[in-house]
Amino acid sequence: MSSKPLSALVPERCADAASDNSGCRPVAAVDEASRAAANRRLDMLTKPQGALGRLEPLAAQVCAVSRTLHPTIAQPVALVFAGDHGVADRGVSAYPRVVTAQMVMNFLAGGAAISVLAKAQGIDLWIVDAGIEADLPVHPRLIDAKVRRSTRDMVVEPAMTSEECERALQLGAKVVAEVISPASNTVLLGEMGIGNTASAALLMHGLTGVPLDDCVGRGTGLDDRGLARKKAVLATAWARRAPPQSPSELLSEFGGCEIAMLTGAALAAASRGMLVLVDGFTVTVAVALAAQLDRHVLDYCVFAHCSAEHAHRALLAHLGVEPLLNLDMRLGEGTGAAMALPLVRAAIALLTEMATFEDAGVSGRAA
Amino acid sequence: MSSKPLSALVPERCADAASDNSGCRPVAAVDEASRAAANRRLDMLTKPQGALGRLEPLAAQVCAVSRTLHPTIAQPVALVFAGDHGVADRGVSAYPRVVTAQMVMNFLAGGAAISVLAKAQGIDLWIVDAGIEADLPVHPRLIDAKVRRSTRDMVVEPAMTSEECERALQLGAKVVAEVISPASNTVLLGEMGIGNTASAALLMHGLTGVPLDDCVGRGTGLDDRGLARKKAVLATAWARRAPPQSPSELLSEFGGCEIAMLTGAALAAASRGMLVLVDGFTVTVAVALAAQLDRHVLDYCVFAHCSAEHAHRALLAHLGVEPLLNLDMRLGEGTGAAMALPLVRAAIALLTEMATFEDAGVSGRAA
Repeated sequence: MSSKPLSALVPERCADAASDNSGCRPVAAVDEASRAAANRRLDMLTKPQGALGRLEPLAAQVCAVSRTLHPTIAQPVALVFAGDHGVADRGVSAYPRVVTAQMVMNFLAGGAAISVLAKAQGIDLWIVDAGIEADLPVHPRLIDAKVRRSTRDMVVEPAMTSEECERALQLGAKVVAEVISPASNTVLLGEMGIGNTASAALLMHGLTGVPLDDCVGRGTGLDDRGLARKKAVLATAWARRAPPQSPSELLSEFGGCEIAMLTGAALAAASRGMLVLVDGFTVTVAVALAAQLDRHVLDYCVFAHCSAEHAHRALLAHLGVEPLLNLDMRLGEGTGAAMALPLVRAAIALLTEMATFEDAGVSGRAA
Repeated sequence: MSSKPLSALVPERCADAASDNSGCRPVAAVDEASRAAANRRLDMLTKPQGALGRLEPLAAQVCAVSRTLHPTIAQPVALVFAGDHGVADRGVSAYPRVVTAQMVMNFLAGGAAISVLAKAQGIDLWIVDAGIEADLPVHPRLIDAKVRRSTRDMVVEPAMTSEECERALQLGAKVVAEVISPASNTVLLGEMGIGNTASAALLMHGLTGVPLDDCVGRGTGLDDRGLARKKAVLATAWARRAPPQSPSELLSEFGGCEIAMLTGAALAAASRGMLVLVDGFTVTVAVALAAQLDRHVLDYCVFAHCSAEHAHRALLAHLGVEPLLNLDMRLGEGTGAAMALPLVRAAIALLTEMATFEDAGVSGRAA
């Protein structure tokens, strides 16, 4: 067994990219003609107009992303980016930092929630070491893309240098380019990193202007005292310097390797025309940053669920998007995204397999 | 091809039944020991306690219903009960009455939403003619259990005689007993019947005391004028007589053949120990009536979704239950129940396949 190798970073791949969008080709607009055709077809199917609720715009979005009226979910891949956080030693999480590596081993062994859901739903699961503190044994499902061993403590210094942050963004894109088969058209984005909701809270604050306290939640399960400590630690970190002026600066000051890599991965997946299933709070923050770098990204994203993590609902509202599921999940790993995949598959099946009123000889509305 | 035959009603099958619970064996309490064991196991799995949100009590409920810590969804069956309503000619629906039979033909031909979802998810789909106006051609997936050709117009007389209503309740139980294989442990309940949200609104009003106007919604898509007409028609129907004093009386006055049959089917499925996936507003009304007849029924029910039909949320709140999905669907047919099945399967997989902290060597919470 060996870990999946990545080729050395090849800067020329990014030669035609805009300077601040992290090495990806620009993201094309989705195909509004396919969306319109899907909506026309949905209105002809044997059901009252709109009666399939959220499944109708979902099916139409998949058509817009796939640029066809006959979309499929082909070879879905889950990428779980994992990294450690210097700030985790300040008691901002209910779990010790060592759990990041332990859970990655659990993902690989098949015992974690995302492992179970991926297996059950035919999702090809890859774990990416974006910046785990520990050395991990090689494994055919583990991708070594370690930017550094854990971020620095953002209370006293930038979490990453700007070079490390740029490298993380590019590696995220590279993972998409090299790990995902061209035959795959759907990616689920997940994360694992003890302390990463602390990073995500600061990123959300910097990105949206929502008051910092409203961006901070209990993560894996802090009690009231822990939550107060987390808020205090993050306020101190934020006050360390003048507010960052760009997504890249924000990410290097307060981000995590896995979060930056998720941002790069979202950009790359969208530029490749893939459907992107967005998991919980931390992944949504990474995608929101990606949308700052390229506004078309959001059109490729399905926001799978609203997490129980405090700030996720406000962030989704800020983005103007509606999550599909509200199951009070707060696990990360891509589990919310995995739960939404059957809904996407169902929406596609309904669009493509239902009969029209004309086919079925069913009467329309009464006069 | 022939329709699935039902044996003649055999009253002695019901000899040991309580007089008002429609020919079913009493429903046993679910197994709280299995629920408790499931909750203990959930707390040992490699995730923060409660981090799987609603999936955790769902998995525990399935254990309680199945009386095991190792449940499965075996041979799920969808029963879609269809009937016509005399009141439909009074403009309480956006569609003409003939659509009930047309849609049943569409179910059988595979073109309807429930046909597509059942096929995609391995659900065995049966359609039951509970009281369709038209004669239907025989079909191997169509069960002839017609109580009468459409109900009477409840504005001027009881929708069913008490004998017809009793027969519908018993036939619902009989369909469960004779159509569903003993190897199946999960049933999805759905309905089709132009005008049946009008019936359901009056039943909800009689059952809950919620003001009638708040029980009335747009059904398949009435406009404001249609909604006002529906409310007026139902107020007239309700004022025809003194309020019914029992679930059976309520059903025969204002019910539909398919609704009464759903009530009988829910009782029979629960008494057989099956997991019952409850679809939208009309099915929830039928289940609420079943719960009046035997209070244990609700413990077997998973409330799949909250429909966009106006009153469904209030009815679910009245029952003290939380739906799994909120997708603004309002189609009926069992489509909401079918959308929830993957969530139930996922909850079971997580409970039974995830590693514990001890198995995986993952550290617990920080001190």
